[in-house]
Amino acid sequence: MTDITIGQYNLVYNAFSFTIAMMGAATIFFFLGRSQVTRDYKTAVTITGLVTLIAGYHYFRIFGSWEAAYTVTNNTVKPTGGPEFNDAYRYVDWLLTVPLLMAELVLVMRLPSDETWKKGTRLGVLAALMIILGYPGEVASSFGTRWLFWVLAMIPFLLIVGDLFVGLRESIAKQPENVRGLVNAARWLTVLSWAFYPIVYVFPMIGFSGGGAETAVQVGYTIADIVSKVGLGMLVYVISVRKSEMEMRSAGTASPMLAAE
Amino acid sequence: MTDITIGQYNLVYNAFSFTIAMMGAATIFFFLGRSQVTRDYKTAVTITGLVTLIAGYHYFRIFGSWEAAYTVTNNTVKPTGGPEFNDAYRYVDWLLTVPLLMAELVLVMRLPSDETWKKGTRLGVLAALMIILGYPGEVASSFGTRWLFWVLAMIPFLLIVGDLFVGLRESIAKQPENVRGLVNAARWLTVLSWAFYPIVYVFPMIGFSGGGAETAVQVGYTIADIVSKVGLGMLVYVISVRKSEMEMRSAGTASPMLAAE
Repeated sequence: MTDITIGQYNLVYNAFSFTIAMMGAATIFFFLGRSQVTRDYKTAVTITGLVTLIAGYHYFRIFGSWEAAYTVTNNTVKPTGGPEFNDAYRYVDWLLTVPLLMAELVLVMRLPSDETWKKGTRLGVLAALMIILGYPGEVASSFGTRWLFWVLAMIPFLLIVGDLFVGLRESIAKQPENVRGLVNAARWLTVLSWAFYPIVYVFPMIGFSGGGAETAVQVGYTIADIVSKVGLGMLVYVISVRKSEMEMRSAGTASPMLAAE
Repeated sequence: MTDITIGQYNLVYNAFSFTIAMMGAATIFFFLGRSQVTRDYKTAVTITGLVTLIAGYHYFRIFGSWEAAYTVTNNTVKPTGGPEFNDAYRYVDWLLTVPLLMAELVLVMRLPSDETWKKGTRLGVLAALMIILGYPGEVASSFGTRWLFWVLAMIPFLLIVGDLFVGLRESIAKQPENVRGLVNAARWLTVLSWAFYPIVYVFPMIGFSGGGAETAVQVGYTIADIVSKVGLGMLVYVISVRKSEMEMRSAGTASPMLAAE
């Protein structure tokens, strides 16, 4: 197990605690926010909150695993010799949340229902495949195996990028004008924040090692998780509110606030 | 107690944690989703969420029991010598959730109320009987006793299959066309995922033993629980939403959104 300094230990420790607070608060925000959108957008906002809830649960476990993996005595950090820090929590989390992120992105566009189903299933399956293919490489000790699964996982990732930029182009062009920019931003935020993961994955293979690398990987994945889950969630929420208000106004509902409750 | 490798220990550990997250997220989804169905379907969706809530609670206990049963030191797994892994949690869970699964399946079909009561009670009692008869075999050390109770538990199981395919045939034929396929899928999903349990039960009797068999049993039961509870729950939820929308439309309710709250 990697030797780390007390400063590195604390930085990762505090980053994990920060993320638990962030994911918890975001979850409550999205769940309460459901009452401010119309029926058509409730599922998108519910799923947004589920993503941060699941991530919050896993960061709680990740935090506990980090604490249990090391003993701190007189400001020196030593592995306890018990169960090592369990990186699998991240993959378990992604296996659940990454397909759900695809679902919230498709649902908030409110396409015709057969198209929602078709596009959502395709993107969800590709997302799950990407995570499943990444894992054997993450736990492999040989760099050859690591590269092999990195390449394999990049295939569904690139197909997703293709779908978001080519397959959904028309659907995005049909979005109401006052949210089109936001939907476009949601798409870019997804691709850019997701691109971060394969980069962090490569760190050990390009010579980064030791406590500094471990710290960079943990903090890096944490930032990427916050951007891709809370950041995308906020965009989905704002898009849902705007579209709800617009659709209620055009339906002539007197008070959007009352109607949404 | 069975000797297991660190890889087997971790696989089961991560599968249990995954299931806690999955059941928790599904519960919130179903409870929030209650607001998206009409009054007639709220009970079906509530029960769906109760099933995943009860399962989530038991997986939390199962996870704790697994953690407490083994000590991991320098990547070697040894039984602690304390309480062994408690498989009874599964039976306690099934005793509660399996009759509830029957209830949600009957409720979502929205039969005349005396028929709902009669069919629901019969299926619920048979389901409880199936679990009660299975347990003495699960904890028996002799294969003879194990086979005896396996056969006894198969009787209510086959009666349930008969009910779902013969007794409910007419009721399914009367379902509105746009959900008939889904109700049929729910029936098949129930029978196929339930058929998995008696197969896993037989593993030790047909020569599978040791850490590999224990891992296969735990992961097998876990997958079957996810499919039979979350999978069926999603079908029940989608059927409820579709039937709600259809009934609101035919009742001429101006705003489905208001009606659903």
